[in-house]
Amino acid sequence: MSNSSLLVVGSLAYDQIESPYGSVERTLGGSGNYFSLAASLFTPPRVVGVVGDDYDPKDWDLLAKREVDLSGVQKVPGKTFFWSGSYVKNLNEAETKETQLNVFAQFNPTIPAKFADSKFVFLANIDPNLQLKVLENVQCPILTGLDTMNLWIHSQRAALEKVIPKVNVVMMNELEAKLLTGIDNAVGSAAKISEMGPKIVVIKRGEFGFLCYQKGDGYFSLPVLPVKKVMDPTGAGDSFAGGFWGYLAKLGKEPDFQDVRRACVVGNLVASFTIREFGTIALQNLKLQDLSAAYQDFQKVIQFPALNF
Amino acid sequence: MSNSSLLVVGSLAYDQIESPYGSVERTLGGSGNYFSLAASLFTPPRVVGVVGDDYDPKDWDLLAKREVDLSGVQKVPGKTFFWSGSYVKNLNEAETKETQLNVFAQFNPTIPAKFADSKFVFLANIDPNLQLKVLENVQCPILTGLDTMNLWIHSQRAALEKVIPKVNVVMMNELEAKLLTGIDNAVGSAAKISEMGPKIVVIKRGEFGFLCYQKGDGYFSLPVLPVKKVMDPTGAGDSFAGGFWGYLAKLGKEPDFQDVRRACVVGNLVASFTIREFGTIALQNLKLQDLSAAYQDFQKVIQFPALNF
Repeated sequence: MSNSSLLVVGSLAYDQIESPYGSVERTLGGSGNYFSLAASLFTPPRVVGVVGDDYDPKDWDLLAKREVDLSGVQKVPGKTFFWSGSYVKNLNEAETKETQLNVFAQFNPTIPAKFADSKFVFLANIDPNLQLKVLENVQCPILTGLDTMNLWIHSQRAALEKVIPKVNVVMMNELEAKLLTGIDNAVGSAAKISEMGPKIVVIKRGEFGFLCYQKGDGYFSLPVLPVKKVMDPTGAGDSFAGGFWGYLAKLGKEPDFQDVRRACVVGNLVASFTIREFGTIALQNLKLQDLSAAYQDFQKVIQFPALNF
Repeated sequence: MSNSSLLVVGSLAYDQIESPYGSVERTLGGSGNYFSLAASLFTPPRVVGVVGDDYDPKDWDLLAKREVDLSGVQKVPGKTFFWSGSYVKNLNEAETKETQLNVFAQFNPTIPAKFADSKFVFLANIDPNLQLKVLENVQCPILTGLDTMNLWIHSQRAALEKVIPKVNVVMMNELEAKLLTGIDNAVGSAAKISEMGPKIVVIKRGEFGFLCYQKGDGYFSLPVLPVKKVMDPTGAGDSFAGGFWGYLAKLGKEPDFQDVRRACVVGNLVASFTIREFGTIALQNLKLQDLSAAYQDFQKVIQFPALNF
């Protein structure tokens, strides 16, 4: 058993995307795919999810050749989750044109027995009742975390309030953190979510970076790496999560706040690559040395000298 | 003649402000006042502006006792510029309830001859035709800059395009930078504004911090200092400008990019104090040692160690 074992439960999808820079008809999408491609820069995750019988073998191979463990992916009759969105009016916020849940509507994750020893567990944005069920099927993890969205905050608040105290890390978008807590301020929201139980809260701020809070250690906040041309922001948040969890899983120990800081920067930078091309294209081509170079560039972008008065 | 001489031309106003944390009926406001209080932490500026005969002698004294030079402020019959706004619905964006330009409507800045030797010149958000006129009345400045707003971008674009190439620094809000350049991206907007002439462009991002671009040196970007309770964001941008220019004027030389980075952080932090209380209250009480402590705190918030893989 490796202490680097990383489990992710999330959606596997096809996306149709329009942006000011063009469009793609049917590109690989879903939190599970973005997460896995990002995380596999560090450690190949074990994926639990569902696809339809229209899932392209090439897409299967793409993850398999990065040593992602797909034995927890159910392939069932029907069509794969499909999402269509446009960034033509606003590059920073998708306008959803169509959502076909398809086989994802009945998704009920089954954790293979051999995944029960996973040490790092990330529950991407799915029904919090299912997140609870997954957690019950993992023994002695080192670090667990979840993402969520406005749909569950509105419709499954009780389940969400039950699962949040059971994880170590909550990662969510700023608007959703404000919605969950009723606090119109990311700083206050992060502290409030932490009061529910999780030691670490990461508020994702889209084009503005992130704010991280660790109980007892305080805040860590940074903007995004300046990128001149954002082509398609789809998957940025899941890429952040993949980089964050992949990095921490590779460390293979309970992270201290310095580790968490590095993980946030890694996630932030992986996302900065994702958005430069449509879908998962940039992620597929990303190399660890590119990320390492961006890490050093980013340190230069945000550094400032001591005051001289 | 001091190389630290700092001239600001801007509005002097009274504000009525509502926020989720209360309201104030008639508090000191306007870019000139926020700027001067902030800048005077470093070097007392020379102010050019106009007030009505209702301007409270106490407010006059407030600046005078910080050695702000008010000899360029015209006092004319009528009422002082009055603005009323509410942050009740959205703490991050004012809903303007009323604007009474009053004596500011006829404002035509006259630069006293003794101010012509000013070495640092900031043209706060006023009609770009007036900004041009002020520049013509200053000899051999070390550094000049301006702010502007959507009103002038729409109604006085030609004048704005004439004055921008004449200054070294442009500071403006992100939405306005996008509007001015037609580029829906702060990174691209900053570079585009710089192509118009100015060496330094600072994009103010409200609750998300700032992005600075210096020609030949690249980007510098940071979030805001995490502040748990924002009471009133009025004047944050002008406080940023005041801290930035006060710091650079005190240096008294053409800044290099490290100086500009420090100036941005100083501005960012001065603004982080302003927003903690209504109007100019926090600025009035701010001490250089508080700012210096915040500077060190901020370095801790944003630091992250080198990668260890």
